[in-house]
Amino acid sequence: MEKLNETLTTQLNHRTIRKFSPKPVTQNELALLFEAARHTSTSEFLQQFSILRITDPAKKEAIREISHQDYVGGNGELLIFLADLNRNYQIRKQLGKDVGRLQTTDLFFQAQNDMVLAVQNTLLAAESLGLGGVILGSINDDPKRLVEVLELPKLTYPILGLQIGHPAQEPQLKPRLPLEFTVFENDYPTEFPVEKLADYDKIVHTYYDLRDANRRVDEFTTQIASAKLDKRVTKRDDIVAALHHQGLCLE
Amino acid sequence: MEKLNETLTTQLNHRTIRKFSPKPVTQNELALLFEAARHTSTSEFLQQFSILRITDPAKKEAIREISHQDYVGGNGELLIFLADLNRNYQIRKQLGKDVGRLQTTDLFFQAQNDMVLAVQNTLLAAESLGLGGVILGSINDDPKRLVEVLELPKLTYPILGLQIGHPAQEPQLKPRLPLEFTVFENDYPTEFPVEKLADYDKIVHTYYDLRDANRRVDEFTTQIASAKLDKRVTKRDDIVAALHHQGLCLE
Repeated sequence: MEKLNETLTTQLNHRTIRKFSPKPVTQNELALLFEAARHTSTSEFLQQFSILRITDPAKKEAIREISHQDYVGGNGELLIFLADLNRNYQIRKQLGKDVGRLQTTDLFFQAQNDMVLAVQNTLLAAESLGLGGVILGSINDDPKRLVEVLELPKLTYPILGLQIGHPAQEPQLKPRLPLEFTVFENDYPTEFPVEKLADYDKIVHTYYDLRDANRRVDEFTTQIASAKLDKRVTKRDDIVAALHHQGLCLE
Repeated sequence: MEKLNETLTTQLNHRTIRKFSPKPVTQNELALLFEAARHTSTSEFLQQFSILRITDPAKKEAIREISHQDYVGGNGELLIFLADLNRNYQIRKQLGKDVGRLQTTDLFFQAQNDMVLAVQNTLLAAESLGLGGVILGSINDDPKRLVEVLELPKLTYPILGLQIGHPAQEPQLKPRLPLEFTVFENDYPTEFPVEKLADYDKIVHTYYDLRDANRRVDEFTTQIASAKLDKRVTKRDDIVAALHHQGLCLE
């Protein structure tokens, strides 16, 4: 196989890091991560995202409690990425315009997409520098509380966090679905027979087995059929109420 | 300044390419792009996105009409990225489980975020190979029609497209908001005085002026206060109805 370039090599070696050494991320490294975020594509040049770098111990603690993950706010840096329609609203207001389309779901999705693109660029930039990280969807475990903790104004919303630092673990590459189940030409398939996923299930099983032989190990399909996706009562479903409270997705 | 690594160099040199040469993207290049997408972070290992590679001329034409952009479906490759909760539903059904949480907004957002992360990795992989591309938010200009054209089953939704190919233009780097307006420590700012954006506005004005001296050129703040964000009737607001039609974001 031909030699991959450095970017692809970094991309194909991605693993989530959840344990970080006390060695700090330097100001120079942080500056590069923010530059990577800043240079990301943005829909219609609206630039609708912001980053909160959390250094306040009380806020770190509160976000750790919300996300139920002990590494959140620990060693390394904790960044919270916001869909930010407020900045443009503030500009419009000063120039005599109303909120316009900023409260529509369409505009919120544009902001969310901008923001998520920037998260990936930031994480990959970190990985290219020898750092590691984990994207924190878990900050959504209590959307209303998170908005309170971050004291966010209307028209801003925290979608994902990123914990970044020097890796203190070397996890195996987690095996992903083969492309035959995820990439299609023109037509989306009519079925996904579980039998066809048997080989992949074995690979996933082996991955978990090697990672921790003492824990119960799951195939991919059994995880999908597990309680993880069953209906249940969870504060994560407050997301719509929290968005509306922030004045977003109203139309 | 120290030398940047290849990944950061690629990231900081990002420009959107909207004009492509007839030189095709090779199968090998495409395969690498899909591998980059496949290795992207995925929330809770749910792997809830899919990619449609569009090669059918009739579908290309229909998507070009929807997006009102002549480069869509032209030279290069057209990829449509789907938030895909259907695959996991099909697996659950075969294993005797119901739709569970797959119709919640929470799960849709997880899928959307997974998908958008993969878009960024795919685009950057292309750029690292000397290709260029444009992320197509414009496929949302008629959400209901797009779902029809792609003949998508329930629980799938097309969020962004990507047109990738060999660049036939060399645009200038588009100047983005300085970090002082987008990155904050702990506290989101209480105001964004337009006066403070005057320097940035000048830079944006110069950028447009250099790009095309014959066109009306805008500052950033005047763009934000322009009709682009004013309230208006647009099919883009069908997005919520289209999501509900697809059985998504119901709870």
